[in-house]
Amino acid sequence: MKLDYQVIEVHPKHPFTISRGTSTVYRRVIVQLTHEGVSALGEAAPSPYYGETADTVVAALELFRPLLGADPFNRQAIMGRLGQALGGNNAAKAAINLALWDLAGKLLGEPLYRLLGLDAAATPRTSLTIALDQPAAMAERAQAAYALGFSLIKVKLGTGHDRDIVTAIREAVPQATLRVDANAAWTPSQALHYLGWLAELGVELVEQPLPAADIEGLRRVTSASPLPIVADESAPNLASLRQLKGAVSGVNIKLMKCGGIDAALEMIHAARALGMLVMLGCMVETSVAIAAGAHLSPLVDYADLDGSLLLADDPFQGPTFPKGRITLVDDPGLGVQPSSVRSQAA
Amino acid sequence: MKLDYQVIEVHPKHPFTISRGTSTVYRRVIVQLTHEGVSALGEAAPSPYYGETADTVVAALELFRPLLGADPFNRQAIMGRLGQALGGNNAAKAAINLALWDLAGKLLGEPLYRLLGLDAAATPRTSLTIALDQPAAMAERAQAAYALGFSLIKVKLGTGHDRDIVTAIREAVPQATLRVDANAAWTPSQALHYLGWLAELGVELVEQPLPAADIEGLRRVTSASPLPIVADESAPNLASLRQLKGAVSGVNIKLMKCGGIDAALEMIHAARALGMLVMLGCMVETSVAIAAGAHLSPLVDYADLDGSLLLADDPFQGPTFPKGRITLVDDPGLGVQPSSVRSQAA
Repeated sequence: MKLDYQVIEVHPKHPFTISRGTSTVYRRVIVQLTHEGVSALGEAAPSPYYGETADTVVAALELFRPLLGADPFNRQAIMGRLGQALGGNNAAKAAINLALWDLAGKLLGEPLYRLLGLDAAATPRTSLTIALDQPAAMAERAQAAYALGFSLIKVKLGTGHDRDIVTAIREAVPQATLRVDANAAWTPSQALHYLGWLAELGVELVEQPLPAADIEGLRRVTSASPLPIVADESAPNLASLRQLKGAVSGVNIKLMKCGGIDAALEMIHAARALGMLVMLGCMVETSVAIAAGAHLSPLVDYADLDGSLLLADDPFQGPTFPKGRITLVDDPGLGVQPSSVRSQAA
Repeated sequence: MKLDYQVIEVHPKHPFTISRGTSTVYRRVIVQLTHEGVSALGEAAPSPYYGETADTVVAALELFRPLLGADPFNRQAIMGRLGQALGGNNAAKAAINLALWDLAGKLLGEPLYRLLGLDAAATPRTSLTIALDQPAAMAERAQAAYALGFSLIKVKLGTGHDRDIVTAIREAVPQATLRVDANAAWTPSQALHYLGWLAELGVELVEQPLPAADIEGLRRVTSASPLPIVADESAPNLASLRQLKGAVSGVNIKLMKCGGIDAALEMIHAARALGMLVMLGCMVETSVAIAAGAHLSPLVDYADLDGSLLLADDPFQGPTFPKGRITLVDDPGLGVQPSSVRSQAA
């Protein structure tokens, strides 16, 4: 297999602010694997929070290059070699894993969801994320999203005025389903205090209220909470699930945290066995990575696959989201192509 | 999809005795699904212990017939419909599920292990089971198995003379790796007492020492045991795993207990997340069902896939077991054909 990659810059439609900071540009690494004349795409959407940047991804890909071997179907051996060569670096590993699945689908002429045996009619709707800003600005953005058909709104929190934000959005979109995500910004006592008004305002669930390592705090908050508590930063990978049993109601699984499609399947099944709700999330990422998540989405309870929708300049086209409903493409593999291609064809 | 099936009788080479009784004949249901001119095989190996017979399988298949639909790739929707129509009956469901995978592999021209992304070079060796008999007869059979290259011997126990059995076999095959399976026959105090001499005799692991429902007993035995304790009857399906966390060292996953390949994958990943050792086992069954297990075997720690090896009259040919090593066939799907075909060709 031949490996090529390109570091690209993509930009959010609006500056993307969460409790940890603001981003106005993202560097992503688009991977291309070529085998027997067939080319396939993968993507790494690295996050410094999880120890990766575009530069570490490039370094990892160079390390992986001689380990890919000649058989794209032998993902078990390939991913095993990558794991043995380098711990962590799961966004880099996900880029390879996604490209291997895209390649398998293209070689077999089948879309990913069919290779997985999944039901394209069972995709959920995705939430659309409203990043942090002044409450009025966030409410306005929620209203615009709702007007476009996105009835599931995910509200970033973790400011000094979280209640004002949720109140303003609740008033702006009274019919919308609201989910909130504190990105680890609250203390346990704040979380316990906030849950009352979050429930009163009809919020559906709360994501990562506490710092990632505070599992005991999550357990206390979850046991007192009228709303499901979903772990994100506390649930990076399969190994993290065991300690979360009983400490949270669900987990947010992301391809870039766990290392790709095979690893995400493992986490989904493990979370189910532990009785957890399953959310499938994403980073701010292009339609390449979003497509991979979309093909897995028939398996999950909640989808937050809006990464490409947040971009002003997504270079790719993949699944579509009419009225927020994840709608899979029937092209082989991930079913992704450069934006220009489908636009020109349309 | 067109569904056909046939109830067949197969016979063990030797009367097959475990702690619950003796069998000299097994009725199995061979399923054939045909789609676009391609035919695929599945098998139900029902066990009265788990509530199924060939007759209940036939009744279930007739109930499933109108629910199969037209798309063999949409296993999620198909298995969902079967599950909604009928609880339990997992051997019947496994027969359909195996045939769907066989069909997908044949339609795509790829063996199952490649569709799953697994490494054919990573298959383990299977154990060979020595059923209950007089200690001398069991020792003789173990010696014959070892002489054929089977260095992993699984010894059925649960008699009044278990120590005599293991001692005789240990003397007969001093180099073999011994695993023992009490099939739920011991009390906790017996188990705790036996573990000492089992360890002294170099036994590798103990399967299902206690009755299926005695999870707390398993927990006590496991915490005191120098050997890994593996649950079989206590671990029928995904839902059973949660309560077994910390109560056993591992689980024996079987296609016929859990309902097929997709369900087995879920259990394998869930067991891993719970930190459990994973054994892949079987019923006394033909090469159709054994082939399905063999394709999954690169994922597991221990394989006990000797069901077809125990038969005098396996009507099918699938994977082979040179010196006990599970060796996959590269034909599409399960890679199984009637015994006569390959024999005639050879």
